[in-house]
Amino acid sequence: MPIKAVVFDAYGTLYDIQSVAEITEDAFPGYGEIITQVWRIKQLEYAWLRSLMRRYQDFAAVTRDSLAYTLRMLGLAYDNAAFERVIEKYLHLDLYPDATSALAALKPRKIAILSNGSPDMLGALVRNTALDRLLDATISVDAKKVFKPAPQAYELIGETFGTAPNEVLFVSSNPWDAAGAKSFGLNVAWIERVTPEAMALACVENELVAPLTMFRAIRTQMDELGFAPDHHVRSLSELPGIV
Amino acid sequence: MPIKAVVFDAYGTLYDIQSVAEITEDAFPGYGEIITQVWRIKQLEYAWLRSLMRRYQDFAAVTRDSLAYTLRMLGLAYDNAAFERVIEKYLHLDLYPDATSALAALKPRKIAILSNGSPDMLGALVRNTALDRLLDATISVDAKKVFKPAPQAYELIGETFGTAPNEVLFVSSNPWDAAGAKSFGLNVAWIERVTPEAMALACVENELVAPLTMFRAIRTQMDELGFAPDHHVRSLSELPGIV
Repeated sequence: MPIKAVVFDAYGTLYDIQSVAEITEDAFPGYGEIITQVWRIKQLEYAWLRSLMRRYQDFAAVTRDSLAYTLRMLGLAYDNAAFERVIEKYLHLDLYPDATSALAALKPRKIAILSNGSPDMLGALVRNTALDRLLDATISVDAKKVFKPAPQAYELIGETFGTAPNEVLFVSSNPWDAAGAKSFGLNVAWIERVTPEAMALACVENELVAPLTMFRAIRTQMDELGFAPDHHVRSLSELPGIV
Repeated sequence: MPIKAVVFDAYGTLYDIQSVAEITEDAFPGYGEIITQVWRIKQLEYAWLRSLMRRYQDFAAVTRDSLAYTLRMLGLAYDNAAFERVIEKYLHLDLYPDATSALAALKPRKIAILSNGSPDMLGALVRNTALDRLLDATISVDAKKVFKPAPQAYELIGETFGTAPNEVLFVSSNPWDAAGAKSFGLNVAWIERVTPEAMALACVENELVAPLTMFRAIRTQMDELGFAPDHHVRSLSELPGIV
């Protein structure tokens, strides 16, 4: 079946969520890296837990709540200005360097984002990085009031483009998202941005098991959820070669 | 409204999940602590993700999958015997020392467990610790094929005892479980087993931010999910005083 649409996850796939580390370090010297990692872990947890609890709040709220949790857990005092400055960065995340050219090379197929982000967050992000000129759609799960990897979230692709699941290539660096998309029936390319081998080696070499390495490692190895992606790629630039 | 039933979470609340650290250390020297922490993080993640994906498998399967993930991530080779020896410990977790006397003191109210554990896991656990003699019911979410904190899981209490939510005190050390139970409408006591102050201090004092401390800390502070527990207690022995 030919691929009619290529749909991308946003956070961690097109946009580098690690790029908040600079501003968190600036706002909280010595804590930039740990804030970045714990914030992301709790952001995802809260998205999943709110979905399960049937207490959906959009990703902007979840992102604020998880940052508040992180700062509180670390015992860091802060004022509103510092908090807002860190949050604001989520609307100005760095685009991965190969994203624009990879998306352009996938035309004339339909190109879209399907993200847990709220419509406002995603709108700002694609405008701020000029990705809106390449995208046929920027789809937020907010329309379904449930977060990925719930199947209702992935249904939005077909509802937007009129495509069957097997006519879509879904691209994500997030293992749980790749598993969820595959479970739904999409073709899936998983971007393995950091080699698990390197991570494991780093753990073995450091008797303390360096925490930041660990926090990243538990997000960068394929999950054991019963669904394996169709393609493993190392960067977005490999995608034109597999459609 | 008088409390007619006191219902306990199992893992981390009545049973010490950290008690697997000895056997993981014995099976994988130098890795006992890190296996214990990552295993638990992924065990919960997989329970939530499978619920969201509508791909329920029971907690025994989730516990095996998350251990396999953990060992693979750490680059640890293992044989079936080592794997089974570690898994087996989940049927023989240590009961917290004050559990038996606290449960006995709560009679003649109905006393139960409501757990994400599978019926087989829970059955073995309560028999192995003689808790079956005190419990009026051992309730597994397996009957609903969805994990806590989904509201369907908490519905099982009323279906078992004929109680209204406000006639039940639900007890958990897991912040997400306390939030889920409160969102459902139960009275909730959260057992704060480790002080967040101590955790925060440990982080500040160690420039590397000791990873094991961090892994535990992100499980032992109340979550920002919009639902606060009614009671904060430090140990099970405080419970007779609040019902």
